Amino acid sequence: MEALSLDDLNAADEAAFLAALGGIYEHSPWVAEAVMPQRPFASLAALHEAMVAAVRKAGGERQMALIRAHPDLAGKAARAGTLTADSTAEQASAGLDQLSDDEYPRFQTLNANYQAKFGFPFIICVRRHTKDSILRQFRHRLENDPDHERAAALAEIRHIAALRLDQRFADAGLGLNGRLSTHVLDTYAGRPAQGLWIALRELSDYDAPQLIARVATNADGRTDAPLIHGRPVPIGRYELLFAVGDYFADCGVPLPDPPFLDVVPVRFAVSEPEGHYHVPLLVSPWSYSTYRGS
Amino acid sequence: MEALSLDDLNAADEAAFLAALGGIYEHSPWVAEAVMPQRPFASLAALHEAMVAAVRKAGGERQMALIRAHPDLAGKAARAGTLTADSTAEQASAGLDQLSDDEYPRFQTLNANYQAKFGFPFIICVRRHTKDSILRQFRHRLENDPDHERAAALAEIRHIAALRLDQRFADAGLGLNGRLSTHVLDTYAGRPAQGLWIALRELSDYDAPQLIARVATNADGRTDAPLIHGRPVPIGRYELLFAVGDYFADCGVPLPDPPFLDVVPVRFAVSEPEGHYHVPLLVSPWSYSTYRGS
Amino acid sequence: MEALSLDDLNAADEAAFLAALGGIYEHSPWVAEAVMPQRPFASLAALHEAMVAAVRKAGGERQMALIRAHPDLAGKAARAGTLTADSTAEQASAGLDQLSDDEYPRFQTLNANYQAKFGFPFIICVRRHTKDSILRQFRHRLENDPDHERAAALAEIRHIAALRLDQRFADAGLGLNGRLSTHVLDTYAGRPAQGLWIALRELSDYDAPQLIARVATNADGRTDAPLIHGRPVPIGRYELLFAVGDYFADCGVPLPDPPFLDVVPVRFAVSEPEGHYHVPLLVSPWSYSTYRGS
Amino acid sequence: MEALSLDDLNAADEAAFLAALGGIYEHSPWVAEAVMPQRPFASLAALHEAMVAAVRKAGGERQMALIRAHPDLAGKAARAGTLTADSTAEQASAGLDQLSDDEYPRFQTLNANYQAKFGFPFIICVRRHTKDSILRQFRHRLENDPDHERAAALAEIRHIAALRLDQRFADAGLGLNGRLSTHVLDTYAGRPAQGLWIALRELSDYDAPQLIARVATNADGRTDAPLIHGRPVPIGRYELLFAVGDYFADCGVPLPDPPFLDVVPVRFAVSEPEGHYHVPLLVSPWSYSTYRGS
Repeated sequence: MEALSLDDLNAADEAAFLAALGGIYEHSPWVAEAVMPQRPFASLAALHEAMVAAVRKAGGERQMALIRAHPDLAGKAARAGTLTADSTAEQASAGLDQLSDDEYPRFQTLNANYQAKFGFPFIICVRRHTKDSILRQFRHRLENDPDHERAAALAEIRHIAALRLDQRFADAGLGLNGRLSTHVLDTYAGRPAQGLWIALRELSDYDAPQLIARVATNADGRTDAPLIHGRPVPIGRYELLFAVGDYFADCGVPLPDPPFLDVVPVRFAVSEPEGHYHVPLLVSPWSYSTYRGS
Repeated sequence: MEALSLDDLNAADEAAFLAALGGIYEHSPWVAEAVMPQRPFASLAALHEAMVAAVRKAGGERQMALIRAHPDLAGKAARAGTLTADSTAEQASAGLDQLSDDEYPRFQTLNANYQAKFGFPFIICVRRHTKDSILRQFRHRLENDPDHERAAALAEIRHIAALRLDQRFADAGLGLNGRLSTHVLDTYAGRPAQGLWIALRELSDYDAPQLIARVATNADGRTDAPLIHGRPVPIGRYELLFAVGDYFADCGVPLPDPPFLDVVPVRFAVSEPEGHYHVPLLVSPWSYSTYRGS
Repeated sequence: MEALSLDDLNAADEAAFLAALGGIYEHSPWVAEAVMPQRPFASLAALHEAMVAAVRKAGGERQMALIRAHPDLAGKAARAGTLTADSTAEQASAGLDQLSDDEYPRFQTLNANYQAKFGFPFIICVRRHTKDSILRQFRHRLENDPDHERAAALAEIRHIAALRLDQRFADAGLGLNGRLSTHVLDTYAGRPAQGLWIALRELSDYDAPQLIARVATNADGRTDAPLIHGRPVPIGRYELLFAVGDYFADCGVPLPDPPFLDVVPVRFAVSEPEGHYHVPLLVSPWSYSTYRGS
Repeated sequence: MEALSLDDLNAADEAAFLAALGGIYEHSPWVAEAVMPQRPFASLAALHEAMVAAVRKAGGERQMALIRAHPDLAGKAARAGTLTADSTAEQASAGLDQLSDDEYPRFQTLNANYQAKFGFPFIICVRRHTKDSILRQFRHRLENDPDHERAAALAEIRHIAALRLDQRFADAGLGLNGRLSTHVLDTYAGRPAQGLWIALRELSDYDAPQLIARVATNADGRTDAPLIHGRPVPIGRYELLFAVGDYFADCGVPLPDPPFLDVVPVRFAVSEPEGHYHVPLLVSPWSYSTYRGS
C-alpha cells in the first residue's frame, strides 16, 4: 500500500477518507467516521488521539463490539486466509502464520479457554511481541478478572491502531520505533573490533532459538544498520553470539588451544518495544563486559 | 585402594614394591622393576622422574611395546570388563563407560582408523580431558605423521603415570590438581551476591550439555568448595549459568518484566588442566563483567 | 604493654584487675570496679558488654563525668605530654601528634567552639578515623543539639573502650579489625599482574595526600599482606595509584607514546572501619574496571 | 580571516593567490609561487600534496632556509609581538603566550641549547601538542642527531602547513580534526546518567592541572558537544573527573557516608591528535569501568 500524506487525508472526500482509515480499527470503520468532521488534523498524533477519544466516548457496548471484531490469534480465519490485510501481516510478523504442528493446537486451546472465560477473543498487539512473549501473555492474561482483561484488550487495540497509522502515513511518525544495536570494542588492541561475526537469535521456552540476523562488524565495531530498527523491538528474550575466538585468531593474537573465550553469548530481554537497546561487548581474549547502553 | 606412603614404599620388599608400582605403567611392571634399585626415593617427584627416565632409556622397541600394552578407548576390552582397574576408572572419568548408541560406533571407527594408520592404539590421558576434547584430539592426531604421533603417545603415558602415582600416594603430590572456581559480586549493592544459583555444564560438539554442578553462592559470593578441585580440570569447553534475574528479584530490586538479565551464561574453555581457573561475575541488573581471574 | 589473657584476669587479685582494666575508660577506674564482682568472664565480648552496661546503669551524672574525663583532641595536654598512654597512642594513630602550624590552631578553634557550645570536650574514637574525617566529624557534630551530642560522645567512648580491650588481650578479639586489600588482573595476558607498583594514599580536604603504603604485586597479583589489616580501616578517603604503564612496558606490550593508560588512580572512601574493602583492578593497556569486592 | 574556497583560489590572479597561500609556509612565499602554475587544484588534499612536493624538490639549502624562517617557541619575537598572525595563534593554542615566570626561562634555555646544537630553531606543530608534551618533545629531540632532527623539523612543518591550509579553506578538509568525547552509563539504573558533572583537565609534569571543560551530561549521558572537536586533540595527558557521588545522591540512591565512590578520576594520554578518543564511564555506586572506545 502506498504511503499516504496527512495533507491528502485532510483534503480527501468522504469515500477516500474512509478507504484510508476504515481499517485502522479492525472491521470498525465507525471510528474513522466519528473523527472525519474534526479535520484538518495538524499531525498524526492529533489524528491518533482523536480516534482513541472516539473509542473512549463510544461506550461499553460499542467497545465490546470492537473487541469482538478481532480475529483469533493463529485461528481458523488465519488458516482460511480470510483475515484483513493488516491482521495477516501482523500475525506473520511474529511467525504466527508458520506455526509447527504442535504449536498450532497450543494456540487453539488457549483461544478456546480464553473465549470460554471472557466471551471475546484474545487481543494482543503482535508487532510488539515475539511468539514466546505472546504465549507468556496469553497464559498470564487468562488469570485476569474480566474488567481488567477488557481494559487490557482496549489497550492492545490502541497499540494496534497506532502502529497501523504509523505505517500508513509518510508523515512524521508516532515514535513507535525501537532499536536494537550492538558494538564491539577490542580492549586488547584498544580499537573497535572489525570483522567480528555476530548472530542475533530470538529465544523461546517453547521452541528452538530462531536466527534473526547474522552480520560482521564494520570498521567502527558496529553493524552497518542496527540489528532491529524502523519498528518496535518485540518484547521477548534474545541472545547475541559474538565470534570472539575467531576474531582474535584472525588478528594474530596468541591464544591457548582451545581459546579461553570462543563464542561469547549475551542473553537479555526486551521489555519496552519502543526503547533503544544498545548491548555492546568490551572484550579481550580473557575478559568481557556487557551492559544496556544507549 | 588405600593410599600408600613413600616411607612404606622405600622399606617394602620386592613383591610389595611391585604390587604397589607395577600398574603405574599399563601392563608394564618392568618400569617399576627398573627403578627398584634406586631406592630410597626422597619424594614422589623423584620417583616419577626415575620412572620417566627408565622409559626413556629403555629404547624404541620396549617403548613401542609399552604403547601397545594400552587398551583401545571405549573399546572391546572396556565393554568386556577386562581393563585394568586404573584404566576402568580413567575411562569412566570422562564418561567413556556410558557412551550412547551413536557415540560408541564413532569411537570404534576412530580406533580402527588410528590402528590402521599407526599400528598402535590411540592413547590419551583421559583424566585431563572431557569427552569432547578427546574426540577433537582423536581427529586432530589422526593427521599427525608417525614419529610425531609416537612422541605424543609417550607424552600421554607420562601424564597417565604421573596421575596414577599422585592418586596412589598420600604424600605431597606432583602438582597435578587444577581448580575451577567462581565468585559473584553484586555491583548494585556493593557486596558479594549471596544465594545466587549457579550451574556448571560441560559443552560438547557431539552431545547435549552435561550438568556438572549446581550450587548457590554463600555469604562471600563464592561456592563453599571450588566447582572442580583436587584433580585436573579436564580440557574442554564449559558453561557457567548464573541465575541473576532470580537473585535480584529476591533482593527486592525493581526490575522490568521480563528482566533485562535473567540467566547469564558464561562460556569458556580450559586448556591447562593443572591451572587455576577463576571465572567471576560482577553483575548489576543491567550489566556484567567476567574474566579469567586467579 | 604485654598482652593479657582472660584467664589471668579472671584469677587476678583486685589490684591487678584494676591495673589491667582501670584505663579502659579514660581516667574512670570506677567502670572496672563495677564489673569486678561479675567475674569470671567467659569471653572478651562478655567483659566488654559488662563494662558498657555498667556505664549505662551509672546514670547521667557519672556519664557526664566520664565524658569530661577525656582530653581535648590535639589539645594542651597532648602538647604537654600529660595524656594517658592510651590517648597518646590513639591521637598519634591519626597523626594528631604531628599537626602542622596551620592545623594546630584549626583544632584549637574547634575545641574551643565545641566546649563553649556543649560544656564538654569533643570525643571521637580516633583509631576509626583519618585526620580528614575527624575534622569533618568535628564540624558536623558542632551542629548537633546537646542531647544528640551527649549520646554521640558515649557511643564514641564505647568504641574507644572496645578497641582498648581488644588490643590489651591476646584472646579472640571483638571483631574490630577491618581490611583493605587489592588485586590486579592483567586482562591483556589473562593472568595476575606481577611486579606492578601500587601506592596507597590518604586524601584530605585540608592537606596534601599522605602516602600510606607503596608495594609491588606478587605472582598472584596481590600484595603479600593486605594494605591495611589487624586494625580498623580508618574512615576517610583514599587513593590507590597503579603503575599500569610501566607494568605493560615491562611486559613488552606494544604501547603508544605516551601510553593511553599510565598511572591509574582509583579513589574511594571507607565508611565501615570494621569492614573488608577489597578494591581490585582489571586492566588492559586500553581499559580498566574496579569495584568494591570482598 | 574569512574562509576561502578552492574555486576562488583556482580563479584568483597572482597577487590574490599569493596573498592567500604565501603564509602557509612561514615567511616562505616561494612554496606558494612554486605550485601556482599547477592550478586548478581538484581538492585541498591535491593542493597540500603539491606544496609538500615543492618543498621536497627544493633541495637541502632552501629547506634549511625554510626551517630557519621559523621563530623560537615562546621566544623574543613572541614577546615583542612580531610573530606572523598564524604563529601567534598557534603559540597561543598551547598557552605559550601566557607562560609563568618560571616557565619562560625554561623555554629560553631549551631554545638556546637547541640552537647551539643544531643551528636552527626548534620547530613543532604546536596545535598538535599540549605545553607538557612540547616540553617533553623539546627534551627528547635535543638528544637526536642532526640528520634525524632536520627530518623531524620538516615533518613538523608539513603538519603546520596542513593545519594552516585546513583552517583557511571552507572546503572539505584534510582530516586533521580529532575528537575527545565521553559518555556515562548508570549501570545501577540501566540508563544514561543525566546531569552528572564532568571536568576535563590537562595534566602536566611542570604545572598544576589546567581546566579545559566543565559540563553536565545530557539525557543521553553524553555532553552536548564532544569535549574537544573541530581541531586536533593535543598530544598530552588528561584527566576526566566524574562527579559520581553527587549524581547518585541526586538520584536518591542509598549511599554510605562518605560514599564509596565520589569524584572518579580517569587519567589517560592522547598520542594521535587526529584520532577519536571516546572515554566512557560505566558506573554504579560500587564499581566502574572505562576504556578507549570509538
